[in-house]
Amino acid sequence: MARVFRVGLIQLMVSTNKNDNLHRIHKFVREAAQQGAKLISLPECFNSPYGTKFFKAYSETVPGTTTQVLSDIAKENKVYLVGGSIPEVADGKLFNTCTVFDPEGSMIAKYRKMHLFDIDVPGKITFRESDVLSPGNEFATFDTPYCKVGLGICYDVRFPELAQAYCKRGCQLVIYPGAFNTTTGPVHWELLQRSRALDNQIYVATCSPARDKTADYITWGHSTVVDPWGRVMSTCDEKEQIVYADIDLNYLDEVRSQIPVTAQKRYDIYDGVFKSSNN
Amino acid sequence: MARVFRVGLIQLMVSTNKNDNLHRIHKFVREAAQQGAKLISLPECFNSPYGTKFFKAYSETVPGTTTQVLSDIAKENKVYLVGGSIPEVADGKLFNTCTVFDPEGSMIAKYRKMHLFDIDVPGKITFRESDVLSPGNEFATFDTPYCKVGLGICYDVRFPELAQAYCKRGCQLVIYPGAFNTTTGPVHWELLQRSRALDNQIYVATCSPARDKTADYITWGHSTVVDPWGRVMSTCDEKEQIVYADIDLNYLDEVRSQIPVTAQKRYDIYDGVFKSSNN
Repeated sequence: MARVFRVGLIQLMVSTNKNDNLHRIHKFVREAAQQGAKLISLPECFNSPYGTKFFKAYSETVPGTTTQVLSDIAKENKVYLVGGSIPEVADGKLFNTCTVFDPEGSMIAKYRKMHLFDIDVPGKITFRESDVLSPGNEFATFDTPYCKVGLGICYDVRFPELAQAYCKRGCQLVIYPGAFNTTTGPVHWELLQRSRALDNQIYVATCSPARDKTADYITWGHSTVVDPWGRVMSTCDEKEQIVYADIDLNYLDEVRSQIPVTAQKRYDIYDGVFKSSNN
Repeated sequence: MARVFRVGLIQLMVSTNKNDNLHRIHKFVREAAQQGAKLISLPECFNSPYGTKFFKAYSETVPGTTTQVLSDIAKENKVYLVGGSIPEVADGKLFNTCTVFDPEGSMIAKYRKMHLFDIDVPGKITFRESDVLSPGNEFATFDTPYCKVGLGICYDVRFPELAQAYCKRGCQLVIYPGAFNTTTGPVHWELLQRSRALDNQIYVATCSPARDKTADYITWGHSTVVDPWGRVMSTCDEKEQIVYADIDLNYLDEVRSQIPVTAQKRYDIYDGVFKSSNN
């Protein structure tokens, strides 16, 4: 089993033209695959502008048109393709949903954003995904020949319990397609990723849409990969581009043997701490 | 109830002379109290050099000589005094123990380090507290007129579950007396504190011994206070000094209302994640 593999993060400039978004993904995934990426991620909301007023109009079923395109692209390029997220419609509800395809084009994971983005920083940003979206209720992981991967979406990264759960289930990489904004991005985006990575001694990758200054919601960009020591391996600015990093599972093992926190957990003490009650 | 109060962190230069260490604490606590600090912390291992070969010789019972000194100092200065840590002997075992005294001189909390510091970074640092120390098995919090406070010691800060537990129990400040070293200090000390603070939207304070370049174990220093937004409020270099910060519980409330992650937790999903089993 390969111990080193390349990931590619497509920081796509997403427009209001769904067909054009899907067309341009094709080009970028081919480029990333040609550069040796075996696991490629698209950003949160890659076929639709990010905003509660767009989700319903751009929503699709899963499987549906967009996931068929993802399947075709994964198969054509023989890569694992993490389909960032799309607005999904199911049973009359809308979800913010990530689907993952293997190199044969089969859908091997589906994750619905579990923690909806409802924040209110007065004078800066107010956003309520829960006005139109419903939350998912399940963790989602998938296996590759390289390592096990866990999925979260954007605001999920603020909830350490998700990455802790994935770490405990054996994931060595957690991917968060995510569209932070220019208020919280500069102060929290990198810190949260480094926290998830160091605390769990895993690789963390985030994939944002590129910044469209004319959009209602201005994304932070800065798609990033952090290593298990908490170091930023690769990052970028807000423009459209692909970010690459070589994930090294031998290095992950080395970090875990040097500072063996994952083996030193006191689950005998923690049990009960994360229940709904207060004790 | 006061919503703003000052903390003082005594970054003491600890020597091999226990009496001198205790004598000098007296002077520093008085100075911090005169500067308005209501809650004052001493560093990890403030009455003994930090090192497995010293713990037994410097160990005391609790209560004992050192805790009596702490009680007297707290009472004299009318402050909450977090007694960093001392090597404690009990039932033939040694512990790394923090005791806390209120302004009347009563001991109101005792915490024994739960995660022992066993690491091995080849060519850099190898340390095994577990060769001589036993771990504690209980969380410890205490109430003040300002807020509820949780306790951890040094390596505990690498285990997010401890701060999560304290946050869930209503703590707004977690204090970690801690002696990081010059290998892990520069890369992880601040990141870990910012992670604990931002993830839980609490204040985090760390108190290190000052750096003695002639000691076996070279401490990092850099006692620090981080606010609930993940920002470093006050910090310092490696020299002997007092670090002050004004904890503002109104600000903590503001952060929690803007980005309400503490109210958005999905304990319905997390339950079971932190048990000893793998599911």
